[in-house]
Amino acid sequence: MATQEFDGLVQTLGMETVRASADEVVLEWTVGPQHHQPMGIVHGGVHCSAIETACSIGASISARERDPRIAAVGLENHTSFIRAVRSGRLRVIARPITRGRTTQVWEAEIRDEGERVIATGRVRLLCVARDAALG
Amino acid sequence: MATQEFDGLVQTLGMETVRASADEVVLEWTVGPQHHQPMGIVHGGVHCSAIETACSIGASISARERDPRIAAVGLENHTSFIRAVRSGRLRVIARPITRGRTTQVWEAEIRDEGERVIATGRVRLLCVARDAALG
Amino acid sequence: MATQEFDGLVQTLGMETVRASADEVVLEWTVGPQHHQPMGIVHGGVHCSAIETACSIGASISARERDPRIAAVGLENHTSFIRAVRSGRLRVIARPITRGRTTQVWEAEIRDEGERVIATGRVRLLCVARDAALG
Amino acid sequence: MATQEFDGLVQTLGMETVRASADEVVLEWTVGPQHHQPMGIVHGGVHCSAIETACSIGASISARERDPRIAAVGLENHTSFIRAVRSGRLRVIARPITRGRTTQVWEAEIRDEGERVIATGRVRLLCVARDAALG
Repeated sequence: MATQEFDGLVQTLGMETVRASADEVVLEWTVGPQHHQPMGIVHGGVHCSAIETACSIGASISARERDPRIAAVGLENHTSFIRAVRSGRLRVIARPITRGRTTQVWEAEIRDEGERVIATGRVRLLCVARDAALG
Repeated sequence: MATQEFDGLVQTLGMETVRASADEVVLEWTVGPQHHQPMGIVHGGVHCSAIETACSIGASISARERDPRIAAVGLENHTSFIRAVRSGRLRVIARPITRGRTTQVWEAEIRDEGERVIATGRVRLLCVARDAALG
Repeated sequence: MATQEFDGLVQTLGMETVRASADEVVLEWTVGPQHHQPMGIVHGGVHCSAIETACSIGASISARERDPRIAAVGLENHTSFIRAVRSGRLRVIARPITRGRTTQVWEAEIRDEGERVIATGRVRLLCVARDAALG
Repeated sequence: MATQEFDGLVQTLGMETVRASADEVVLEWTVGPQHHQPMGIVHGGVHCSAIETACSIGASISARERDPRIAAVGLENHTSFIRAVRSGRLRVIARPITRGRTTQVWEAEIRDEGERVIATGRVRLLCVARDAALG
């Protein structure tokens, strides 16, 4: 498990959890060349990944607080790209829209150090038994 | 430019272009721990990134064929997760829905080696002057 | 029930079922002023409604064939507008991407009489006990 | 033009503008059988339509204030259904996320009289010359 945490996508992309609860999740990362698309701006997939990560962490905490055997898995990710960014430190903040027993919806916003919105998105997640596969 | 290509997100995630034209783009990658979320399945952000990449490559080729000064930048990425996957080789295929002068819509599907659908998504892109920032 | 069918949104918008099964649903309607937005083109909400309807009918048939007590309710609707249209007869065709026990994903395309794509979309649905509310 | 306003989708669905500016748009409507799907709950297409309408009105006002020859047309509508509703008065509030010269993104939320969230969505719009067709 320690190995997985060390090796996963979040670590590959250098995203760090600032704080995480069932009400709000905040991650930060410093943009580097490993986040770029060929034109030298942050690849849209990085923003999708940050939004997916932050929403999933929040939904998982919320699901687990209700029942430790339950996990939340993403069903749909919808991300809108607002402003191109090349460098600097980015922050994603995710908050719940609904935390039902069956599904949850979280939304997240990525901002730069000047508080400008870079991307914004929404993730619908399904609450499943921790050992079940995504159906 | 060579450095950027070496360093970018697509290389970080190990995605390889199998073929690319204005009509179809195919990428492949082998799943490793760097693609996982904490439960050991491929992180949704990886699927979003593959779909974003394949659609962007196709839209850029199409835009450039029409006018070499034009690039295509992503506006919206919508990805649906269909089936969890832990390992193996994945393939994303993107094809255009519309290739207008102002915007394009591409859709993409990720399948595993058994041809099962893993994820499917759609990207709306804006055609902009190659040196303009995303507005 | 007859009253509901007579009175519902689908009847308000004049959409007619051409055929419907767990594998494919086809609806048609003739564009009139009641479908327009102020500029005289078909309102995007009409396309969303057609896509939502076609996908929901298919998912409900599929869910019911598996278990008559189960209904499918929409979780997410994502619609891309491809081409403006002012008049004529439109047709929406929906087909399943996945028909799991818990959720389904259907995609649908709207075409005009010249077979041009007008809009395309995707609906994620949740399979619920027929008498349960959306959670 | 008066005829169009009288006849359009917004009038068909009985949606009334409470207030509208480039910063916020509010519409309301009273649920009736014409909004229902066969199970007697409000059809998802009604929520998509309300969100599309509110976001489009706001984006059009914003575009026109910048240049009266410009209109805003919807590219993508993404709506999440949060809670089923059968009756009562609903209100949609739309606010801008970005109002660029080329594209805009607005988000909107539908609430019932008890301030519960019923649906939430986002619309990406393209700013085009008022007489141009959607490309």
